[in-house]
Amino acid sequence: MDDAITELITSYNELNSSSIIELDQEPSPLEFMRFVAKNTPFVVRGGAAGWKAIRDWSVAYLKETLANEQVNVAVTPFGNADAPTPHPDGSGSLVFAKPHEELQPFPKFLDYLIQQEHHPDTSPSEVRYAQTQNNNLPLEYPLLAPCVPASIPFAHIALSPTPSSSSTTSPTHALPDATNLWIGNSRSTTALHRDAYENIYVQIRGRKSFVLLPPACQPCVNEIGLWGATYRRSGSGGLELVLDGDEGDGDGEVPFAPVWDPDRPAERGTKWSGLGRAVRVMLGEGDMLYLPCLWYHKVSQACGEEGVCVAVNYWYDMDFGGPLYPFSNFVRAVGKANSKGG
Amino acid sequence: MDDAITELITSYNELNSSSIIELDQEPSPLEFMRFVAKNTPFVVRGGAAGWKAIRDWSVAYLKETLANEQVNVAVTPFGNADAPTPHPDGSGSLVFAKPHEELQPFPKFLDYLIQQEHHPDTSPSEVRYAQTQNNNLPLEYPLLAPCVPASIPFAHIALSPTPSSSSTTSPTHALPDATNLWIGNSRSTTALHRDAYENIYVQIRGRKSFVLLPPACQPCVNEIGLWGATYRRSGSGGLELVLDGDEGDGDGEVPFAPVWDPDRPAERGTKWSGLGRAVRVMLGEGDMLYLPCLWYHKVSQACGEEGVCVAVNYWYDMDFGGPLYPFSNFVRAVGKANSKGG
Repeated sequence: MDDAITELITSYNELNSSSIIELDQEPSPLEFMRFVAKNTPFVVRGGAAGWKAIRDWSVAYLKETLANEQVNVAVTPFGNADAPTPHPDGSGSLVFAKPHEELQPFPKFLDYLIQQEHHPDTSPSEVRYAQTQNNNLPLEYPLLAPCVPASIPFAHIALSPTPSSSSTTSPTHALPDATNLWIGNSRSTTALHRDAYENIYVQIRGRKSFVLLPPACQPCVNEIGLWGATYRRSGSGGLELVLDGDEGDGDGEVPFAPVWDPDRPAERGTKWSGLGRAVRVMLGEGDMLYLPCLWYHKVSQACGEEGVCVAVNYWYDMDFGGPLYPFSNFVRAVGKANSKGG
Repeated sequence: MDDAITELITSYNELNSSSIIELDQEPSPLEFMRFVAKNTPFVVRGGAAGWKAIRDWSVAYLKETLANEQVNVAVTPFGNADAPTPHPDGSGSLVFAKPHEELQPFPKFLDYLIQQEHHPDTSPSEVRYAQTQNNNLPLEYPLLAPCVPASIPFAHIALSPTPSSSSTTSPTHALPDATNLWIGNSRSTTALHRDAYENIYVQIRGRKSFVLLPPACQPCVNEIGLWGATYRRSGSGGLELVLDGDEGDGDGEVPFAPVWDPDRPAERGTKWSGLGRAVRVMLGEGDMLYLPCLWYHKVSQACGEEGVCVAVNYWYDMDFGGPLYPFSNFVRAVGKANSKGG
C-alpha cells in the first residue's frame, strides 16, 4: 500500500508542473473553468492593478475612512492563529491554537502593526491580525468594500451551478460565499491548511508568499486530529493558551489539521513527506492567485513600505459532485491506515 | 482499508445522481466544461437531429454510396469482440477475446446484418460488426464522413489545451483524436471497459443502451490481467479462438480488463460490486451522449426498422494533468492490494 501512495504522489508530480502558471491578464470564464477542471492554480500578474483599493489604500486613507470603527482583531503571542502549537502543559504534544479575538479601534490597531513592523525591538511582541474570514469585508468593513469588485467576473460566471436539467438553465451566477479582508504585518503566518472553497486571492499592500500542495499530497502533510485550544487574556494582560475542553464548550477536537510544515520538512513529517513537491508563488501588489479547492497552503507575508500587509480573498463554493472530493477523502483514509501500520 | 473503499463508493453515490442529466439542446463550451470538470455524463436529446446523416442514412443510401467499397469487419461467434471470454482450453478461466478482422464488400456486409436481424432463426450465427475504432470514419468511410460534423463545436472549443503561459493563448482548438463509425445489429455487445478519452457518442440509426460506472467504482468491476486471444477462421470456415501468445506475437497479456458485468451482478464480482450504482441511458436516433473519460461503459443495441444500428463517436484527448488520472490509478492499486488480502 505504501507503493500505491508513493506512486500516486510521484505520478502526480510527473504529470503536473511545480511551477506556477503565470498569466498577464484575467482568463475568460471558459479558460478559468479549464483550470478548475484540472484543479490547478495560476497567478494573474497585475490582475487587480486597476482596482480602486490598489490606488487608494494608503495607511492615511484607511485610518481616515475607518477613523471611528472598532474591528475584530485576532491576537496571538507568535502570529500562530489556527496553528499546531505545543500543548500548554509543556508535554510537547500539539494542540490547534485559536487566537484571542477582541475589538480594537481601527486606527490604534493599524498603528500597532506599523510600529511593530518598523521597530520590532522596541515593540510589544504579541501579534495582531485582522483576519476574521467570515465575509468580513462587506459585513465588518462596509466602508472599504466598494473599493474592490463584489465578485470576480470570470469566477462567478464559470462557477455557476451546472443545471441538473435544461429547464433550469437560467443564467444565475455564483456570487462569492465570503469575501474576506486580511490586514496584518510580517509577524503573522497562516499555517498549512486547506479549504473546501475555490479561492481567488488578491494582494493589495505588501507581498504574500504561498506554499501550495495539491490534494494528492495529502499523505505528506501529516494530518492528525488535534485538540483545540484558544488564547485568552491573562490577568497580567499577557496571553495564555487554554484547551477548549477545559471551558466546557464541546470536546475540543479539531479533525485533521496538518502538522507538517513544508518549510521545516525534516520535522513532524510522514514517510511520504519527502515526495511532495510544493508550488511556490509570491504575490505582489495587484497580483491575483487562483487557489483551487482542497489545495493545502501555507502563507507568510512581508509588508509594503508603509508597514502593513493587506489582501482580499473571494471564496466560491466548491463542487462536491464528481470524483475530487470522495477521492481526496479516500487518499486520507488510506494514508491514515498505513501510517498506523507502517 | 475495505472501509476506505466502501466509503469512497458510497460517498460518491451520495454526492452524485445515478440518473443521467438530460439536456434538450447542446451546451455552450463553458456549460460543457462544467460537466468535464465534474467528470459527469449527460445526454442531449435530439442534439444531432439536424445532421445530414440522420436525414439520409437509409440502408439504400448507405448501399448506394458504398456500393464498391470493401470495409473492415470484426467477426466473432457471439458478438463478443474485446470481451472476457472462456479460455478455449475449456478450463473455465477467462481470456480477452479479440475479433477476427476481414475485409468484406460493404453491401454484402449490410445485407448480412439485416438478414440476421430480421430472420435470426434461419441465419448464420456469426456476428459481424464494423467498429474499427481507429478514426475509421474519415479514413475508411470518406464518402460518409461529410454527413456528420468533423468535430463537435462545444467540445473542441472547451477542450482546447490550457495554455501553460499567456504567450500561448492563441485560439487553437482541439480536434478529435478519432472519429469512429459503428455499424452492426442487435447481436453485438461492447463489454464493460473504459477509455482515456473524452467521448461524444451520437446515435444515427437504432438505439443504444449504455450502462455507465464512474472511476470511483473501479473496485466494483474486478479489473484483472487477462491473456489476449484472437478469433481466426478455421479450416471449415467457422471461428476458433487462439491465444495470442501461441502465435508468437508478444506475451499476450492485456492489463486490467474488467470481468464483472453490471447486468449479471452476482457473477465474477468483488466484495464491492454490490455498492456500485450504474447510470443507465438509452440513446435514440439523433441523441448525443457525453461519456466522460475513465468511465466504465457497457453498450448493447437494438436496430431501427431497417435492421441496422449505426452510430458515430468522437474521441477527444483527456487531460492527464490534475488529480483525476493519478487518483483513478491509486484506487485501482488499493483495490487490487485488498482483493488479494481479503
